[in-house]
Amino acid sequence: MRFEIDAHDPHSLARAGRLYTAHGVLKTPVFIASATHATIKGLSPEEVAHAGIQIVAVNGYHLWLRPGVELIAKAGGVHKFMRWKRPILSDSGGFQVFSLAQSREITRKGVRFKSHIDGSPRFMTPEASIEAQNALGTDSAMIFDECVAYPSAKEYVRESVELTLQWARRSKAAHNNPHQHLFGIVQGGTFEDLRLRSAEETVKIGFPGYALGGLSVGEPREEMLRVIQATLPALPEERPRYVMGVGTPADMLACMRLGIDVFDCVLPNKNARHGSLFTSQGVLKIKNARFREDERPLDPSCDCEACTKYTRAYLRHLWMAEEPFGARLLTLHNLRHYAVFMERAREAIVNGTLSRMHVSEGRAD
Amino acid sequence: MRFEIDAHDPHSLARAGRLYTAHGVLKTPVFIASATHATIKGLSPEEVAHAGIQIVAVNGYHLWLRPGVELIAKAGGVHKFMRWKRPILSDSGGFQVFSLAQSREITRKGVRFKSHIDGSPRFMTPEASIEAQNALGTDSAMIFDECVAYPSAKEYVRESVELTLQWARRSKAAHNNPHQHLFGIVQGGTFEDLRLRSAEETVKIGFPGYALGGLSVGEPREEMLRVIQATLPALPEERPRYVMGVGTPADMLACMRLGIDVFDCVLPNKNARHGSLFTSQGVLKIKNARFREDERPLDPSCDCEACTKYTRAYLRHLWMAEEPFGARLLTLHNLRHYAVFMERAREAIVNGTLSRMHVSEGRAD
Repeated sequence: MRFEIDAHDPHSLARAGRLYTAHGVLKTPVFIASATHATIKGLSPEEVAHAGIQIVAVNGYHLWLRPGVELIAKAGGVHKFMRWKRPILSDSGGFQVFSLAQSREITRKGVRFKSHIDGSPRFMTPEASIEAQNALGTDSAMIFDECVAYPSAKEYVRESVELTLQWARRSKAAHNNPHQHLFGIVQGGTFEDLRLRSAEETVKIGFPGYALGGLSVGEPREEMLRVIQATLPALPEERPRYVMGVGTPADMLACMRLGIDVFDCVLPNKNARHGSLFTSQGVLKIKNARFREDERPLDPSCDCEACTKYTRAYLRHLWMAEEPFGARLLTLHNLRHYAVFMERAREAIVNGTLSRMHVSEGRAD
Repeated sequence: MRFEIDAHDPHSLARAGRLYTAHGVLKTPVFIASATHATIKGLSPEEVAHAGIQIVAVNGYHLWLRPGVELIAKAGGVHKFMRWKRPILSDSGGFQVFSLAQSREITRKGVRFKSHIDGSPRFMTPEASIEAQNALGTDSAMIFDECVAYPSAKEYVRESVELTLQWARRSKAAHNNPHQHLFGIVQGGTFEDLRLRSAEETVKIGFPGYALGGLSVGEPREEMLRVIQATLPALPEERPRYVMGVGTPADMLACMRLGIDVFDCVLPNKNARHGSLFTSQGVLKIKNARFREDERPLDPSCDCEACTKYTRAYLRHLWMAEEPFGARLLTLHNLRHYAVFMERAREAIVNGTLSRMHVSEGRAD
């Protein structure tokens, strides 16, 4: 995976780069939008691309269970299946096996569990996960890892790190798609020594890029940033670094300053469905009664369809009436907000002005 | 309401016409798509217009309760509120008061009921309904009527017809919007003598157009067609005739042949949400397992976004995963199917070939 660093921020460890994939070049820092089931909640691929989203993530666990990866492979791969022409990353499903599936039984070989859809028994191994991701034809794949809950006892996390290292080796050995890059994943909970061991051993195995997993799973933000800061020195500077499941714009900005290049999070989609919007003035809850007759745009400084065409009053009406066009417009807005935020952050890194960049986390009026 | 008849079918009572409204000319026969809450399930106004839908119907009852018609009036009317530039019809809410509201009490003055949203007490009168519709600024309004259930005892229906006639007079007297046309509504259940009395008296009151209400509420299709056939001779030929709540393409075709010009129905929207699609080959249930790996378009002869861009396999996947983009695409397809069906029917009337027009009601393979 060719990765070129274009600029370093003079006041932090942030960098701006370019990541080359089989479906185009990603400008980093980059946000990966969640397209879990090979679709982004109510939006067309054209709308998502138009919003400035460079790459989406599909989920290996979900697509493996339904509709099945063979079906997608037969259809010509997930790009063709969902008609998204830009890069796609697939998650290995590790996180989902540990967060969604029922009756989990972890062995060295893999994880036996019951499908959260129909309770059918399944067995996932690193080999099966990588094979599935190869078949999906995504541009980037992730190793199959164990994602431990927060908090977890240190002894459990220590063993889990060793298991994930074994699974990382097997994932790499099973990987067999020259058009796809495989990310290693560093685990270790909130224990710096375990994180460092995980990072060093994962680097020894050797991957074109490295992710930090098991973060943003309930630990305090300061813990998360402390762990990232402690771990990154063990990862090669010239390779892309990806923190999984992060986060709000403020979280991403903090992580960028520590040297993170790649982010993914379900937050813009999920918050939109819950009526919570990221705006240039802070967070806006559309159901609030004070927007009832508000004929202003959601965010006057946003150029998305929701903000340029509709009023807060109409968006609130759609929201209150549980109309799907409401969730669609709000999801589009949040994604556009994220895309613009990443573009501005990159520009600021290139211009050396990232230290002056600020995210309003308060309530928008 | 200027209404010009361009052509009569030589083999039936069908006619092709043009209906002039403040927001453009409708080519009849015309299908009114349901935009109950001032939005069409998941679709943008641009997409609905692009699908060939000429006019949408908003619901007076729903918008009166939420977000309130004053709010919409202040926002510049419902066209501006929802950004739909073509004609809009508003239903009076009669049907909803009788089908959705709780604890109904009907008096000569109006209907006391509890809101289905929050149980709050409400009182709807013909005057309040017309005032609400005036305030919405729709192009066509409907009188406030009593819609009786099927089956109902003849004595009840007889009294109800008289009540609706009184309410029709009061609706007309209350109407005060020169840019809006008020339709009269003929009631009378499935009793031909009551239908004729209702029609004759409604015509005496005098409206620019006449609707048949209280049909498609559970009665057998033959009953419905018999009632329409018996009633239409009592309505002036030179005025548009609208049958409310009808129906499938086959139903609409049968009604057209009896002389109906205007239709509205929630069926294309509702069936799409239930995975039931109208296609040129019949009805297709997308969840059917035989479409699992089917890479053909939903309907090879349709030019909508769902049919030109996606496979049955992908649409089925979205459906099974309950992804909103699925319902969006399927709704768009059904609306496009209806729009094309109406265009073809009109063309057939103009060309004198309507008798050869056929609708496949079977199962699509």
